[in-house]
Amino acid sequence: MENNIKIALLGGDARQGYLAADMAKRGFETAVWGLGDQNIGEAVRCKDIISAIAGASAVVLPLPASADGMSINCPFALYEEKFKLSALLDITDVPIFGGRLDESFFSLANKKNKRLIDYFESESLQIRNAAPTAEGAVSIAMQHLNKTICGCAVAVIGYGRIGQMLAHLLAKMGARVSVAARNLKQLAQAESLGYDTVRLSNELLLGGLEPVCENGRFDIIFNTVPARLFDSSVIKALPDSVMLIDLSSVPGGVDFGAAKERGIKAIWALSLPGKYAPETAGKIIGNTLIELFEREGII
Amino acid sequence: MENNIKIALLGGDARQGYLAADMAKRGFETAVWGLGDQNIGEAVRCKDIISAIAGASAVVLPLPASADGMSINCPFALYEEKFKLSALLDITDVPIFGGRLDESFFSLANKKNKRLIDYFESESLQIRNAAPTAEGAVSIAMQHLNKTICGCAVAVIGYGRIGQMLAHLLAKMGARVSVAARNLKQLAQAESLGYDTVRLSNELLLGGLEPVCENGRFDIIFNTVPARLFDSSVIKALPDSVMLIDLSSVPGGVDFGAAKERGIKAIWALSLPGKYAPETAGKIIGNTLIELFEREGII
Amino acid sequence: MENNIKIALLGGDARQGYLAADMAKRGFETAVWGLGDQNIGEAVRCKDIISAIAGASAVVLPLPASADGMSINCPFALYEEKFKLSALLDITDVPIFGGRLDESFFSLANKKNKRLIDYFESESLQIRNAAPTAEGAVSIAMQHLNKTICGCAVAVIGYGRIGQMLAHLLAKMGARVSVAARNLKQLAQAESLGYDTVRLSNELLLGGLEPVCENGRFDIIFNTVPARLFDSSVIKALPDSVMLIDLSSVPGGVDFGAAKERGIKAIWALSLPGKYAPETAGKIIGNTLIELFEREGII
Amino acid sequence: MENNIKIALLGGDARQGYLAADMAKRGFETAVWGLGDQNIGEAVRCKDIISAIAGASAVVLPLPASADGMSINCPFALYEEKFKLSALLDITDVPIFGGRLDESFFSLANKKNKRLIDYFESESLQIRNAAPTAEGAVSIAMQHLNKTICGCAVAVIGYGRIGQMLAHLLAKMGARVSVAARNLKQLAQAESLGYDTVRLSNELLLGGLEPVCENGRFDIIFNTVPARLFDSSVIKALPDSVMLIDLSSVPGGVDFGAAKERGIKAIWALSLPGKYAPETAGKIIGNTLIELFEREGII
Repeated sequence: MENNIKIALLGGDARQGYLAADMAKRGFETAVWGLGDQNIGEAVRCKDIISAIAGASAVVLPLPASADGMSINCPFALYEEKFKLSALLDITDVPIFGGRLDESFFSLANKKNKRLIDYFESESLQIRNAAPTAEGAVSIAMQHLNKTICGCAVAVIGYGRIGQMLAHLLAKMGARVSVAARNLKQLAQAESLGYDTVRLSNELLLGGLEPVCENGRFDIIFNTVPARLFDSSVIKALPDSVMLIDLSSVPGGVDFGAAKERGIKAIWALSLPGKYAPETAGKIIGNTLIELFEREGII
Repeated sequence: MENNIKIALLGGDARQGYLAADMAKRGFETAVWGLGDQNIGEAVRCKDIISAIAGASAVVLPLPASADGMSINCPFALYEEKFKLSALLDITDVPIFGGRLDESFFSLANKKNKRLIDYFESESLQIRNAAPTAEGAVSIAMQHLNKTICGCAVAVIGYGRIGQMLAHLLAKMGARVSVAARNLKQLAQAESLGYDTVRLSNELLLGGLEPVCENGRFDIIFNTVPARLFDSSVIKALPDSVMLIDLSSVPGGVDFGAAKERGIKAIWALSLPGKYAPETAGKIIGNTLIELFEREGII
Repeated sequence: MENNIKIALLGGDARQGYLAADMAKRGFETAVWGLGDQNIGEAVRCKDIISAIAGASAVVLPLPASADGMSINCPFALYEEKFKLSALLDITDVPIFGGRLDESFFSLANKKNKRLIDYFESESLQIRNAAPTAEGAVSIAMQHLNKTICGCAVAVIGYGRIGQMLAHLLAKMGARVSVAARNLKQLAQAESLGYDTVRLSNELLLGGLEPVCENGRFDIIFNTVPARLFDSSVIKALPDSVMLIDLSSVPGGVDFGAAKERGIKAIWALSLPGKYAPETAGKIIGNTLIELFEREGII
Repeated sequence: MENNIKIALLGGDARQGYLAADMAKRGFETAVWGLGDQNIGEAVRCKDIISAIAGASAVVLPLPASADGMSINCPFALYEEKFKLSALLDITDVPIFGGRLDESFFSLANKKNKRLIDYFESESLQIRNAAPTAEGAVSIAMQHLNKTICGCAVAVIGYGRIGQMLAHLLAKMGARVSVAARNLKQLAQAESLGYDTVRLSNELLLGGLEPVCENGRFDIIFNTVPARLFDSSVIKALPDSVMLIDLSSVPGGVDFGAAKERGIKAIWALSLPGKYAPETAGKIIGNTLIELFEREGII
């Protein structure tokens, strides 16, 4: 099922290798540069960027596209590879897709009249990432807990995409799940799926989280709300035995210093799809690219 | 846990009886009129509307509030009860809550400066109704199918609240679930929960539903999309053995005449929460009223 | 995938029709007699028994093989068909497979030196029947209950094949499941799957079932134990609101007269696979026959 | 809920600490010796064995009772503790309960007329251990796999207690589960729970496992059969990408040398309850002891 369309994949980590193999399997002529000796399936390795992008209909940068804000992110390259993002704009006219692109790169692309798309902004990718994020979070809990998930009492704070996926998975594994949220509609939904619910007050100070902190009520608390909910006063109110897994992005929902001082096991679990399940993460990027390629008229 | 607040419940069917018992249990002094000899738990029956609403902080009409657009809906009253909605506005000043209220009643209430709230419009009620709707739909399928749900191949058309709930329930019962929708984000979500997905084209003519009509692919098709998808040409393309359960409201998604002619089992399943699970439906109305009472400052 | 082996299917109900279609699909030349106008797929209808069994390697009687203990069970035959089981032994020498065969038929076959096998005795059939039995029982509960299974508290009495399957299905559907049994190993297993457990005392009088009768504790009680557990004194101790579904075979586990007098909804649900899911039941018989054909050297 | 019965817990690892806390919670006066500074809840630490066993109605040795076949197993003792099992028989007359006791200790106890019970032999403990074993095995898979369990194709070889629990858990997490076994009844049960089944031939050489080895069919194979199924010839036939998790006890079902040479990820996962979930394992020992205490007339 070849489709006679060439794409160039530059840099990246294990995900990018799986992505390359996946795109080749879908019939794209897939040229890879800057991935070291990662398995790339039927994709083809190129020695330099120029040959990789020659004839390509799209260029795909990794997630994140850059680690230093300047050059393409190539953590697996065998020798030091430094290729500037800005230089890339000068050598190609086809659309460039990348993950977590920063403002300045967009401005530059704009100025040079090049098409730049951040696939990490795609809602479809965010939706698909919820599953490996939830599974990764549960895996971390399983590694650190001294008992089985089956039979545990867990609280899931926040009931967005990731909170929902987490609650489903934990319930299926036999945990007693309580969903804590402020939004009444989310609580209604959680309730009608059979979860216990904890209504958080609008003021998410100690008062709001009190029912979650009650002594010994929960074995694990998963936080998915991107706000500093677990500050030192909340941490102080938690029972010793609880485990805290924070899935919220920078700056994080937990005062980890306070947790450490208090002797509470607290883990900040970030970027789980790439770390926990790079093959799944690569395929998710692939699915998202297909949607974006369609939208951009590439396929 | 009495709360010294009186409410009056007028008319209604089995749901209203369960609602009355539920509200009494929550501590409201609950006066009931027009429910015949339905079980109403600790609520109190009144002989006339005047005594029922005397001292009440809220009046609750049934779902639907009226069957004829004129008088309160009293299907279970022992003798003919006809009390006009318009007359109700003249004898009370407290907020009136009802289900599926029509425009003209709102206009009248507005003119008379009375507060009128349609609890059926509450998103929270709609969310909570998805669970009994899905269970009721599955119960209907179980009654009409000659085999077990476990092992069946089912298609769920549409992936809104009810489609999602249906897919979850069917999958847990062991069916192989395919979700058919147009929206890519919904399909991404369905896919990441492990369902097969069928992408419907924008033109929902035969072309769009073709993958769903394929010979013998599905044992049951549940339609949740409120549009006439299954017109005579689509019906003609379906295999004999399929069963069609339509959950979409008036005018319905299926040409039932064509289905009958074609010999295909097709069922239009409407208002499932009230029919399939009146006790659950009554409690859901209770939960919704509590939220609305809070919002209206009644509690 | 024809296999050049002919089999004859005599009599039976809807299950036998599905069985005929299933066996034909598996490649057997399948001759059918005494099934009226049931759909039999690619199988072939014969006008008389002689032509049906001519050249057959096996004869298959229905489940049950006989309704009157004398002649082949033909409830769907279009005109009165009476063919004596004893006469069948005189016209064929190939193995005869039937369901629920009685002692006298076995003696007669023995005397005449004919091979007779009761497929209903096959443990494999009993195991496979647990799934449609459990689903059928849940379907009955769904039809008679006024609320959703999701959120119900249910007790499953007995934890054999059917008890286990019921507990699994109900738990997946969102019920809170309690398993009641005497056997400590069964309780240990139920507990480790996350169910609540109720240890019944050896004396299964009221004392033993007391924790199950506690006021309002359970919405539904499913009995799978083939003993008169629910006698009039136990029935008296049950709360009004409970529903009792008895899956135990004759003489049944419930004093239905006492239940009726007490106003308790009690249902005796027998032979569920055939009634609830004849297609599944037919396939299960087919699977069992294949195993028995192998054992008997027919295939 | 004190019960005025004293028990003495000697030696052990984290499980024994949780067991001590659990038994104290159940109302036993619980004396602990040889556990270092493990958390023991409300149990009481004793400086020497004599004071620990003084007045006790039962003595509980750890699992395993001895690591060297001579002295009590005390891996967590702060300084070298060596107390001979044989000496224990001389200082107490109450029943002694221990895990994995060897023959010679039983002979000695017999000779000295002391009651000795191996709680590890209890079927109830084996049943309860299946859940933490399955969860531990899945946790190991999650740590080593590059993708999510949801969406994986897994084979479970053997369908005893652990195989069943594994299949359930993996299916709930969204894996496509195939059960491979020889026993037709087990396969019938697996099939009726909705799993794919692979019938293994009696000769479990390469021939028998061929359908499991098929190229790329499975992402993970869990072996629960205590026989060397995966010898070098089977290993050779496996695809590169498969992961092998062996749960069978010594001597193990996998030729790990051959797997390493072949570049296949193979993990021997032994004694999972104690390693993966010591708290759960401790409670399971507690549940088992209660049953045995009852049987022995201690409570």
